[in-house]
Amino acid sequence: MNTIKVGLLGLGVVGGGTWKVLSRNAEEIARRAGRRIEVVAVSTLDPDRARELVGDTALITRDGMDIVRNPEIDIVVELIGGDTVARQFIMEAIEQGKHVVTANKALLAKHGNEIFEAARRKGVMVAFEAAVAGGIPIIKAIREGLTANRIEWIAGIINGTTNFILSEMRDRGLPFEQVLAEAQRLGYAEADPTFDIEGVDAAHKLTLLASLAFGIPVQFDKAHIEGISGLESEDIAHAERLGYRIKLLGITRRTENGIELRVHPTLVPKGHLIANVEGAMNAVLVKGDAVGPTLYYGQGAGELPTASAVVADLVDVTRLETADPLHRVPHLAFQPDAVKDIPILPASEIQSSYYLRMRVADRPGVLADVARILADAGISIGSMFQDPSGPNQASIIFLLHQAREGAVDQAIERISAQPFVQSKVTRLRVENLQ
Amino acid sequence: MNTIKVGLLGLGVVGGGTWKVLSRNAEEIARRAGRRIEVVAVSTLDPDRARELVGDTALITRDGMDIVRNPEIDIVVELIGGDTVARQFIMEAIEQGKHVVTANKALLAKHGNEIFEAARRKGVMVAFEAAVAGGIPIIKAIREGLTANRIEWIAGIINGTTNFILSEMRDRGLPFEQVLAEAQRLGYAEADPTFDIEGVDAAHKLTLLASLAFGIPVQFDKAHIEGISGLESEDIAHAERLGYRIKLLGITRRTENGIELRVHPTLVPKGHLIANVEGAMNAVLVKGDAVGPTLYYGQGAGELPTASAVVADLVDVTRLETADPLHRVPHLAFQPDAVKDIPILPASEIQSSYYLRMRVADRPGVLADVARILADAGISIGSMFQDPSGPNQASIIFLLHQAREGAVDQAIERISAQPFVQSKVTRLRVENLQ
Repeated sequence: MNTIKVGLLGLGVVGGGTWKVLSRNAEEIARRAGRRIEVVAVSTLDPDRARELVGDTALITRDGMDIVRNPEIDIVVELIGGDTVARQFIMEAIEQGKHVVTANKALLAKHGNEIFEAARRKGVMVAFEAAVAGGIPIIKAIREGLTANRIEWIAGIINGTTNFILSEMRDRGLPFEQVLAEAQRLGYAEADPTFDIEGVDAAHKLTLLASLAFGIPVQFDKAHIEGISGLESEDIAHAERLGYRIKLLGITRRTENGIELRVHPTLVPKGHLIANVEGAMNAVLVKGDAVGPTLYYGQGAGELPTASAVVADLVDVTRLETADPLHRVPHLAFQPDAVKDIPILPASEIQSSYYLRMRVADRPGVLADVARILADAGISIGSMFQDPSGPNQASIIFLLHQAREGAVDQAIERISAQPFVQSKVTRLRVENLQ
Repeated sequence: MNTIKVGLLGLGVVGGGTWKVLSRNAEEIARRAGRRIEVVAVSTLDPDRARELVGDTALITRDGMDIVRNPEIDIVVELIGGDTVARQFIMEAIEQGKHVVTANKALLAKHGNEIFEAARRKGVMVAFEAAVAGGIPIIKAIREGLTANRIEWIAGIINGTTNFILSEMRDRGLPFEQVLAEAQRLGYAEADPTFDIEGVDAAHKLTLLASLAFGIPVQFDKAHIEGISGLESEDIAHAERLGYRIKLLGITRRTENGIELRVHPTLVPKGHLIANVEGAMNAVLVKGDAVGPTLYYGQGAGELPTASAVVADLVDVTRLETADPLHRVPHLAFQPDAVKDIPILPASEIQSSYYLRMRVADRPGVLADVARILADAGISIGSMFQDPSGPNQASIIFLLHQAREGAVDQAIERISAQPFVQSKVTRLRVENLQ
């Protein structure tokens, strides 16, 4: 059987890892795929470094177009990132009738519909297992492993940087800024950490998972995103006392009125498996109507784990190449003509439980007034505790039962306007994930 | 696109569940598969009950051969179990050129090589996701999701009955027999629980996982199997004190000399995710050289979770039907001509850490004698504690470092022959799963 020829766009961390895995496991991979998979060309801005890695076995070029237009190449692997040149290269590769493997979540979350439609027209595959949760085969699990199910919801720790920071904040009682600085020093966080800590990276990934789960177009612009930069150590400690841990979760849920698509710090019960996912690890919980809850855990980033997903995609594309294009696994799990535009709900329509914390003047009647405002909004209180937090000052912490976020926010606005409230009201969401 | 026609052999718990899932999620499934998947015939020994479930939408027969020889049927789903008639039906279905979906781990663990070879010759698929860990797509994960990796080892909780019993024994401090009786009353254990509690069911599943991971033929007869019926509450309590939990694990590992294939009660560190898999849930930990450790968790049995896997296989077969048979995903993950007959190691060659417990006469020199015997065998002691366990009697518990099982067993034989040893020496394996 003839060799599958691969062109690699980008030879950074993941590109280098892909090269390494394909080389060192070449025999194992060929035994599985039935053919050898060989990188024949590489594009990079640092040809000298590339030469050290790949030697004379592959062409090296500075121009990605040399790769996507090379008639010898069967599959183009895009590992440049970003949504400018990466997009041009992928569109041109598709135009040239080549299959594409990419780890580019930002690009797909924003331009996936266009890319998948172009691929469908040309009868080529665009595989992107590495775009979500690194080496964990979560896209395959949803797209192929759980096809029997009506997926009800997905909740995932899909950003290792923030999970590392939250684990450290809890374990060592340190404030966010200090842990972030340390994470940057250790290489767990980038010099500009905005995409990670503000939840944008997680939202890119969640957008893709939602499409795969519910058969909807990708629509990153409608995701509701909150990061962890505003999170205070105090709330982590209170959560712990209440039996919860705080995790940055991406949550997408099917409701009667539409799809929830949201990333935010979330209180989850301490005993839940997902609450025990520590450090830079990732885990995704998927609830199907037949299978019940399933969980997928592993390294969500890094050179070799991400390369593991890229190479698995290469094997998949190799195995499926001869299948009738109409019968291959569809890009977004559902057949293109069966994708439905179910609305994404605005944040105010989200249903969740809530944790509230506020500082108040410590005098009679305060608690009664706050409880009255919540009751007037139809929100019921699960549990509450009060601590002295300064001279004549107390912290009140509420765990509220399930409510509509719009109602909770209106109640918070009323509470904040009370003269006895001496801080902003901290509001975090609580999910029991049952 | 024309409908895929399915014949169902057996309409018990999983057969009924398969019918239900295919009916209630028919639209969702068709949106994914691109075609409708319809059960057109059912074989069962209870036609009246079947009529209640399927109404007039499918033929009902008492004879499975009516199904496997029905020219209208594209895929035969075997949910009878056992390795007599099920084997005949599957072989005949293959002979008739039909694809097969089965949940029958006992059959595949014993006769898989023959069945897969017959399927290869006829160019049909035999899918068996439901045979291991119920609804968790673990076969897909190993066979397709981790193809980039040289798999190093797999360790799994793949029998829900025994995990339920162990969870209850630990939580409530009850002896094995009492918990087993309760599990039977609750329907978690069968009237004849031998296959579950003696580890045979787990070994069937592990045999399949080992083949998928390492590209070796299925060879159940070489598995080393120990169940939980001899496990004493005392050891669960000691393990807890040492920071471990006891789980019935199926472990398969690649070593320089061959493959370890073993099922036995195992001490695992309390903080490990797999130690926190409770009740009847299943979880499989897979260590790949590139991806690192990954874990897959969910319901390993039951009507709808198992049906979830059966139906996912139906969608897979539907999607792959048009692919060139040589390019479909191979049954055992590796191409048939690339399967290698790496030897399975005998139990004496297993490398593990060990927990030993013995009752001894409480007098000077006893500990020194036991320690000397271990040292003579080249086995080093990790930690030890001693408790009074009766008048002039003490329990000694050892955690040993990594050793060859044959050496440990010889040392135990020498220890048992000492006059001061007043009980059998309990030996359990310890795995840190790092």
